[in-house]
Amino acid sequence: MAHGYKVAILGATGTVGRELINLLEERDFPIESLTLLASPKSEGMKLEFRGEELTVRAVAPEHFEGVQLALLSAGAAASLQWAPVAAAKGAIVIDNSSAFRMEDDVPLIVPEVNPKAVSMAKNRGVIANPNCSTIQMVVVLKPLHDAAKLRRVVVSTYQSVSGKGQKGIEELEKQVSDLMNARETEAKAFPHRIAFNVLPHIDAFLDNGYTKEEMKMVDETRKILGDPSLAVSATCVRVPVFLGHSEAINATFEKKLTAQQARELLKEAPGVKVLDDPATNVYPMPMLAVGDDATHVGRIREDLSQPNGLELFVCADNLRKGAAANAVQIAELLVEKRLVQRS
Amino acid sequence: MAHGYKVAILGATGTVGRELINLLEERDFPIESLTLLASPKSEGMKLEFRGEELTVRAVAPEHFEGVQLALLSAGAAASLQWAPVAAAKGAIVIDNSSAFRMEDDVPLIVPEVNPKAVSMAKNRGVIANPNCSTIQMVVVLKPLHDAAKLRRVVVSTYQSVSGKGQKGIEELEKQVSDLMNARETEAKAFPHRIAFNVLPHIDAFLDNGYTKEEMKMVDETRKILGDPSLAVSATCVRVPVFLGHSEAINATFEKKLTAQQARELLKEAPGVKVLDDPATNVYPMPMLAVGDDATHVGRIREDLSQPNGLELFVCADNLRKGAAANAVQIAELLVEKRLVQRS
Repeated sequence: MAHGYKVAILGATGTVGRELINLLEERDFPIESLTLLASPKSEGMKLEFRGEELTVRAVAPEHFEGVQLALLSAGAAASLQWAPVAAAKGAIVIDNSSAFRMEDDVPLIVPEVNPKAVSMAKNRGVIANPNCSTIQMVVVLKPLHDAAKLRRVVVSTYQSVSGKGQKGIEELEKQVSDLMNARETEAKAFPHRIAFNVLPHIDAFLDNGYTKEEMKMVDETRKILGDPSLAVSATCVRVPVFLGHSEAINATFEKKLTAQQARELLKEAPGVKVLDDPATNVYPMPMLAVGDDATHVGRIREDLSQPNGLELFVCADNLRKGAAANAVQIAELLVEKRLVQRS
Repeated sequence: MAHGYKVAILGATGTVGRELINLLEERDFPIESLTLLASPKSEGMKLEFRGEELTVRAVAPEHFEGVQLALLSAGAAASLQWAPVAAAKGAIVIDNSSAFRMEDDVPLIVPEVNPKAVSMAKNRGVIANPNCSTIQMVVVLKPLHDAAKLRRVVVSTYQSVSGKGQKGIEELEKQVSDLMNARETEAKAFPHRIAFNVLPHIDAFLDNGYTKEEMKMVDETRKILGDPSLAVSATCVRVPVFLGHSEAINATFEKKLTAQQARELLKEAPGVKVLDDPATNVYPMPMLAVGDDATHVGRIREDLSQPNGLELFVCADNLRKGAAANAVQIAELLVEKRLVQRS
């Protein structure tokens, strides 16, 4: 490892942690040293980075010594504990959990959408990475919002089991195999069977009848687009797909956009790929989005039920753009803006 | 077989045809004779009804002789050919295809919603059974519409592969098995792989960018609820589920309904089961709806994005309430109203 930054990843052995390691390598992020941290039960595990085997260490304050960039992906409780430690030692923290997202003095960033907010990183040394389902929605809505002013969003999601991490993936695998072998299935990672079923339940239920996942889509979208009064309603649903989240979005604008105008705007938008040729069966699907850092959009059509509405179907790799890729892009933005200290 | 009606089923060997046979038995429909018809390639097949083996015959005009009730479920082309034949011989036809649904002089009936339209059966001797995704939506919207006047519906569906018949079921089975054995998958019934994927594509695409399935939800809902100006927009999506369709519905009303008011109205509504206790993880799922003739509704909550909106999640067995059960209920309605001739 040559010139670059001293980087640490907390939660290195999880699904998003591993994707962070892949992406730092794939996107050739300038790294001087990479420290892999996890809970004590993963201590000693070996993971490969740029052809070298790195040993995972049990997280402890001293491992953040000299770290300039800390990528946290070990859940909200771990972030609440370790983000202040890393920041106190001078690191800028990019946090994948929900712990800091709605804090007023913590920026919540999707680099294609609100890159300027990155300057707020200095407040507490923490930048929050939004929820997977929010990221792919705002990447697509932003260019349309700029052109026609977004007023209201109604979104229904089709979210993959990898959103629940490795245990979500393993549970779907096991249930499918059990069903194909006429064995009873067991549900542990999810509240009910997910194999060949759909669950309108992601994260905990709140008093208003919505889930936390649904409220993240409301609150985070407002914060990222900088419009606290934006009307958003969401239904978040788990589907038996391993990788890739999909969303059916109905958006209302102040001004009329034709489907063709929207398509043109989206073709020019950063981080977006338009897959929209129904005549040849081209439209976004999770199987196409997997492994791609871009957000796919298609089925773009004028809403038949109101004058200034659009219907869109959006897919993205929830472990990449929905998590690790967005975090690495934030890191790249910090480098570009010289907001992180170099050795 | 004793007192009752002379009934024929065309398309008896298909997924809906077999469900029709089951349901006529299960609901104890009064039958004097049951004639099973299909295309010549199914001639000679044996199917059981009330403990007797019945032989499937190749459809021909003479088999409709004396038939009082003809249930057609062999696709739109077969319906266009055989509905007039059966009707000319004095039968009342209940047609499962899309062939006659939007004809002004043909009633389109969901017995819980618009039973009075059944009197129009005499016009052409044909009653149309709506599309699966429409039926489960209107059953739930009707009691709310009566209380608060429905203005606009935005719906996203999660539709099972059985909507494509036996070949849809077999394709998902085969693709799952191929993937688990590291074999290449092949897509024939669907335009792309459906196993562990979602397809925002059901039925053919139209010039306006919507699919026929989506436009059925628009047009049929308006016809059944008797409001040609009702605003409806739909996104229809196939998911890797064998049986049971789900829908996330965002509905706007003229008057305010609280979630609790909606729940009370739906608890009293015919053909509806309310499954709505988030605290104990109770909500509709396709796995619960399978085998039930009722439509399940839950996740009932006030739309956060507008004053008079509700969010609902709805599941039903697409082969039963979405097809065969609704057709048999129409037959029962004809009997009750003495609109079909008895031997």
